[in-house]
Amino acid sequence: MSIRIGIMGYGNLGRGIECAIKQNEDMELKAVFTRRAPESVSILTEGVQVYPADQILDHKEEIDVLILCGGSATDLPVQTPEYAKHFHVVDSFDTHAKIPQHFAAVDASAQEGGKVAVISCGWDPGMFSLNRLYAGAILPVGQDYTFWGKGVSQGHSDAIRRVNGVVDAKQYTIPVEEALEAVRSGSNPELTTRQKHLRECFVVATEGADKEKIETEIKTMPNYFADYDTIVHFISKDELDRDHSGIPHGGFVIRSGKTGWEGENSHIIEYSLKLDSNPEFTASVIVAYARAAYRMGQKGHKGCKTVFDIPPAYLSAMSGEELRAHLL
Amino acid sequence: MSIRIGIMGYGNLGRGIECAIKQNEDMELKAVFTRRAPESVSILTEGVQVYPADQILDHKEEIDVLILCGGSATDLPVQTPEYAKHFHVVDSFDTHAKIPQHFAAVDASAQEGGKVAVISCGWDPGMFSLNRLYAGAILPVGQDYTFWGKGVSQGHSDAIRRVNGVVDAKQYTIPVEEALEAVRSGSNPELTTRQKHLRECFVVATEGADKEKIETEIKTMPNYFADYDTIVHFISKDELDRDHSGIPHGGFVIRSGKTGWEGENSHIIEYSLKLDSNPEFTASVIVAYARAAYRMGQKGHKGCKTVFDIPPAYLSAMSGEELRAHLL
Repeated sequence: MSIRIGIMGYGNLGRGIECAIKQNEDMELKAVFTRRAPESVSILTEGVQVYPADQILDHKEEIDVLILCGGSATDLPVQTPEYAKHFHVVDSFDTHAKIPQHFAAVDASAQEGGKVAVISCGWDPGMFSLNRLYAGAILPVGQDYTFWGKGVSQGHSDAIRRVNGVVDAKQYTIPVEEALEAVRSGSNPELTTRQKHLRECFVVATEGADKEKIETEIKTMPNYFADYDTIVHFISKDELDRDHSGIPHGGFVIRSGKTGWEGENSHIIEYSLKLDSNPEFTASVIVAYARAAYRMGQKGHKGCKTVFDIPPAYLSAMSGEELRAHLL
Repeated sequence: MSIRIGIMGYGNLGRGIECAIKQNEDMELKAVFTRRAPESVSILTEGVQVYPADQILDHKEEIDVLILCGGSATDLPVQTPEYAKHFHVVDSFDTHAKIPQHFAAVDASAQEGGKVAVISCGWDPGMFSLNRLYAGAILPVGQDYTFWGKGVSQGHSDAIRRVNGVVDAKQYTIPVEEALEAVRSGSNPELTTRQKHLRECFVVATEGADKEKIETEIKTMPNYFADYDTIVHFISKDELDRDHSGIPHGGFVIRSGKTGWEGENSHIIEYSLKLDSNPEFTASVIVAYARAAYRMGQKGHKGCKTVFDIPPAYLSAMSGEELRAHLL
């Protein structure tokens, strides 16, 4: 019998979940829930219904794991605790600073409901966090470095769009190659914000706009750009749509550490991602953890879990015997 | 109270374990056991005794986790099942093909003794296996690639030393840069043995030896070299000792996969290690898993475990709260 998945929220992430389910033979999409008018939402999987979000409890018996595809700012802080009372759930809550309070709220609900709730699942938080944990446990004397990109930052693209005279924009975060090489050399450099990443912006301006003024406004924007070397290109709307419609991302987690009686030997552990589609990859991670949530539930576990708490074997469709024989 | 570690076998790996324990404040080295004459073994940690291997059961109450540093060919198949009856143990059994039978033997003993036994711990098997599992679970439609090196292969160095006229030798396994790049491009190439790695040998010949004959014998050696492009350098014993006394190693685990409704997006997950000292890094992984074995034992778990079965949080000296606040 397959694991029956429900999707709450059908944007880029929800669609990615749907695609990922198709790649996993032990799973099936059971239903999609939306706050929009269900008839306005057209999904890819034949024979699967879209229901109004507020009817979700009517489908409690049909769904093994509910995947929450809302945003971290306002949706998930409410939804995850609410639904963890009734379903095994997985979310991708990514406001790092608020994870402890989100964990506490979700744990209370999941304990009460006897369900497993996996929060902050994806690649950062998620796979990057895991790699920071493993590498730090293996090399306790050392230093962590996380670089992001090359990839699209939605937040920074939005910030540019709010500048007067800007029609549309896309911002790429790019790790600085020299900084990566310095870290990989084992020299444990201290790197400033500016030394680690640069920001490249593709901007469509309104006709007759003062481009110099727009460029200055972007480059001096506090928090978003002022601390970085920023490159601004003005392009046409057609060029933006043609060359910058993807949502690539990725990055690097590097631990540089020492071993030996006097710390005489150096080691570099590096984990990197190069992703054509940020939401589809995030969705793929979430779907693997949905399998884990289901299995942990079957074994009687309950409460809030993160990637740190979940035995890796639960993620794989293979049995323990197969894993040991083929992957170990 | 610290976790009290015993070391069985004091070679390169045992010494690496001793160094790693020094870096972990929640651990202490309690005793070293050896099959050699204890007075002939001089260790680094002040105040710690070396005992004969056959007296180990006298120290049962002083040791929380026993780390087995013997070889996979003849030591561990006997030692791990034997000691898992009496101690939580960790070994680095690395004969991939025999892992299932080793697991079964160790599991029977550990279940009987109520102990936790972690087998096949290190980087391959170990961290590389874990990365194959995670990446394959996340990207089920894709292909795995493992490259080793640049690093010293003990087995290949030994094989060269058995050639007539060879005094000493060191062999480096080197991943072919073009093959790595092809994999990273997402083109999912089919790679032959020769296309993936090359072998570079530094050989000290006896005076007056027929170097051409030695080189041919190395390059045509079945299993070890015949399937590879092999480079042979003849150097002096002094040069070998000066430039090739280290035991570096490392490698790459890469998963290239597709997502999207029609597999239209490509993703690359890459994990790599660059290690100055193969045994010290292996030891560092083992010591983190010794912490995990101890904690799982405290929670009442028993039986044989691999890196696949162990929740990542158990490896870290940090609490769950600290991990969520700082690493997630």
